[in-house]
Amino acid sequence: MSSDSSTPTAPTRPPGTARKDGPDSSRRSERSRHAIYDAALASVAEVGYQRTTIEGIASRAGVGKQTIYRWWSSKADVLLEAFLDLSEQASEAAGGTPWEFPDTGDLAADLKFVLRATVDELLDPKFEAPSRALAAEGVVNARLGEQFVTKLLEPQLQLYVGRLRSAQDSGQVRADIDPRIALELFVAPLAQRWLQRSGPLSHGYTDTLVDYALHGIAAR
Amino acid sequence: MSSDSSTPTAPTRPPGTARKDGPDSSRRSERSRHAIYDAALASVAEVGYQRTTIEGIASRAGVGKQTIYRWWSSKADVLLEAFLDLSEQASEAAGGTPWEFPDTGDLAADLKFVLRATVDELLDPKFEAPSRALAAEGVVNARLGEQFVTKLLEPQLQLYVGRLRSAQDSGQVRADIDPRIALELFVAPLAQRWLQRSGPLSHGYTDTLVDYALHGIAAR
Repeated sequence: MSSDSSTPTAPTRPPGTARKDGPDSSRRSERSRHAIYDAALASVAEVGYQRTTIEGIASRAGVGKQTIYRWWSSKADVLLEAFLDLSEQASEAAGGTPWEFPDTGDLAADLKFVLRATVDELLDPKFEAPSRALAAEGVVNARLGEQFVTKLLEPQLQLYVGRLRSAQDSGQVRADIDPRIALELFVAPLAQRWLQRSGPLSHGYTDTLVDYALHGIAAR
Repeated sequence: MSSDSSTPTAPTRPPGTARKDGPDSSRRSERSRHAIYDAALASVAEVGYQRTTIEGIASRAGVGKQTIYRWWSSKADVLLEAFLDLSEQASEAAGGTPWEFPDTGDLAADLKFVLRATVDELLDPKFEAPSRALAAEGVVNARLGEQFVTKLLEPQLQLYVGRLRSAQDSGQVRADIDPRIALELFVAPLAQRWLQRSGPLSHGYTDTLVDYALHGIAAR
């Protein structure tokens, strides 16, 4: 999934990198865009969502605030795109392809691979503070929470849905299972441990979740 | 589980109701205690955790702030106990016994009963706003988050652990399952949908989680 879209507030993609105003301007835009993302993430990590402002982001990024308003309509939009960018980078760093779910034919292995990479991302200090700030605000701020879900969380969950559907097609998952609920058996425990600090995160833990979810905990 | 403890900051119980200073004073204390709980919950729902103060709680409750400091050492302590009290009331309203997990011998039925009651509690407006405010603060405030887990969440999760162990003893759950992880398959999805508003809550949903967790989603 990639786009040269010039509609920077579109849900799933950061502003286009190839702009009509030529290569030099385009490189400058790209640099500004990343400086703005970094500034937005740093600000929310440091002072929280409520005290983050477009002015503050512009000043940290060394750009005029009109540059920000040219591309985004609100601080929520900047932040959501900064997170999309961060998580695409994390995905690439883990050896995956952003917005693609591996399908080796072995469902358990594919789920474990993605969940291990997610654990690594959640434990990455670069990700930790800004993500917590945004998630906390989403808990009490319904509008932001819904944007967070629509633009960031749900598109990622839909990748699991796709993988579970393909496992249903190949007969590895029961046909009567609702994939949108089933994915929560392994995704939600990881999310809760991270959000609420209710237990340690490790690769062994997510592997166990996958095994339990696939085979059930009941005696046979 | 019940206690006449005179150490009101103990993790699991509100201040004792039978105090050495006699029945009239004890009734007054009881009234004050509930007024303080209500004020604490109302304050955090209205202005958030950070702007909630002992002074503000005292003023809303119509008591002197020394009355609060006599029983609790911080606003976090007051709030955590107010939540314990609220969730005990919810438990009783749902026909259960606080701090006891039903054990009818039918694990699926018992889990579904408790999760349905939890859905009802989470959808109760009395519970919604203060719980969100506390949960949001716990996401970004590690110290509060850890108290929230230690005093509120983990004692509740341990009730599931106990029930799953008894199901292992009776041969309904595989002996090699770790109950502390297994419970997350049905508890965490509910928590995530509530915290992140990532999907609707209903009795049918939690019933489905229990069925998937017990029997697995893989084809046999």
